[in-house]
Amino acid sequence: MWRADVITIFPEMFPGPLGASLAGKARANGIWDLAATDLRDFATDRHRSVDDTPAGGGPGMVLRADVLARAIDAIAPEHDPRPRLLTSPRGKPLTQARVRELAAGPGVVIVCGRFEGVDERVIAGRNLEEVSIGDYVLSGGELAALVLIDACVRLLPGVMGKEASGAEESFSDGLLEYPHYTRPQLFEGRDIPPVLVSGDHGRVAAWRRAEAERITRERRPDLWAKFREADLTRMADAQAPAIPPKKATDG
Amino acid sequence: MWRADVITIFPEMFPGPLGASLAGKARANGIWDLAATDLRDFATDRHRSVDDTPAGGGPGMVLRADVLARAIDAIAPEHDPRPRLLTSPRGKPLTQARVRELAAGPGVVIVCGRFEGVDERVIAGRNLEEVSIGDYVLSGGELAALVLIDACVRLLPGVMGKEASGAEESFSDGLLEYPHYTRPQLFEGRDIPPVLVSGDHGRVAAWRRAEAERITRERRPDLWAKFREADLTRMADAQAPAIPPKKATDG
Repeated sequence: MWRADVITIFPEMFPGPLGASLAGKARANGIWDLAATDLRDFATDRHRSVDDTPAGGGPGMVLRADVLARAIDAIAPEHDPRPRLLTSPRGKPLTQARVRELAAGPGVVIVCGRFEGVDERVIAGRNLEEVSIGDYVLSGGELAALVLIDACVRLLPGVMGKEASGAEESFSDGLLEYPHYTRPQLFEGRDIPPVLVSGDHGRVAAWRRAEAERITRERRPDLWAKFREADLTRMADAQAPAIPPKKATDG
Repeated sequence: MWRADVITIFPEMFPGPLGASLAGKARANGIWDLAATDLRDFATDRHRSVDDTPAGGGPGMVLRADVLARAIDAIAPEHDPRPRLLTSPRGKPLTQARVRELAAGPGVVIVCGRFEGVDERVIAGRNLEEVSIGDYVLSGGELAALVLIDACVRLLPGVMGKEASGAEESFSDGLLEYPHYTRPQLFEGRDIPPVLVSGDHGRVAAWRRAEAERITRERRPDLWAKFREADLTRMADAQAPAIPPKKATDG
């Protein structure tokens, strides 16, 4: 069973939205599990302090290395094979490729960043992998943890069935999704594009592909550039002899 | 009061994590408010259907334009000044700059994408702004809506006080945060860097700035390039005469 452990000062935020919908059903069905651990349980003073003022001064509070290390060691001892993530705007941006890796593994341990930050020494000492869900600042890492877990859970076998479909395939291709339409045929003077109701599967597929490429090109030049690069590599590979080429596409 | 309206088939997911912590307190204090509207209330059949199969075939289901348009018109009539967002991996990536704009406005109306997608005609017909919180696929747009609202709420006056500090300032500068340390002085053989306990504020500030630049350079070449460009613009502006320059930095 895929298992997520979350270390947080707001355990009441979990499972939260993951208790409903597909993720909630899948958890009830034993496909995955989630436990939230209260970091304050690992404090040693009677105020259950987990943070202190930043060395060098400045606003905010910093999560203590010793308290957090105790929590991590209790939840994920050294032999635990799961990656230890720390949600943080400083982290490596989360991608669908990384989500697929995490979903294919045994689960995740997630430390939710809070306050001003986390003492750097526990990041190094416990080999925490800093992950960012985007270039914006949240009030804490809890929502980022929920996002990360949701993205993984929907990929677990048995969770989505056929619905794990276009959006996923589109992103795997490196393209944004083509436009969708459904009944009614006419909405406020706007028709469904005729090709989609033509019954010609080849033309439908070609139209969708062209639209996905157009939307990616227009909206995300960064993704489009990566897609084109990968496309050239695929073409080069297809034309290459059976011996491995000398990385011709790097030049 | 800053107000978020969310249109969703999972109203029970709200306020969810936003009911706790700073956002929850700020809502209790009347600084902002949130209402989740069940899209199914705007269906017209007895099964309360909100979706149908995609025109042109394929897996998944598409949210109907007519049902969603009725919900939007009820929640946010034409004179409502709030931006109408649609959470979707096809959207424009959310940035802290956009978050600041949204937080400075009257609030947001958010349609949570679900199933395979949303009928394109209601996106056009109701001028929905597609927003993506990152390059990964979620089981639905609800978590993205929560993320977006949380990022805005923490910037509302009176929500964070002094804690809205380094992380925010760092991102505003275009740099990732410098490393943080707090007591204890020694953790598993690792000391707090001596400069931070030197009491020399100038040296502390210089060290932090250098570390923020180093971390940004190492981890996010994309942000680093943008930061350098903005830096050059600032330097050019500082040296320029009082008349507007001819966009010299674009060349």
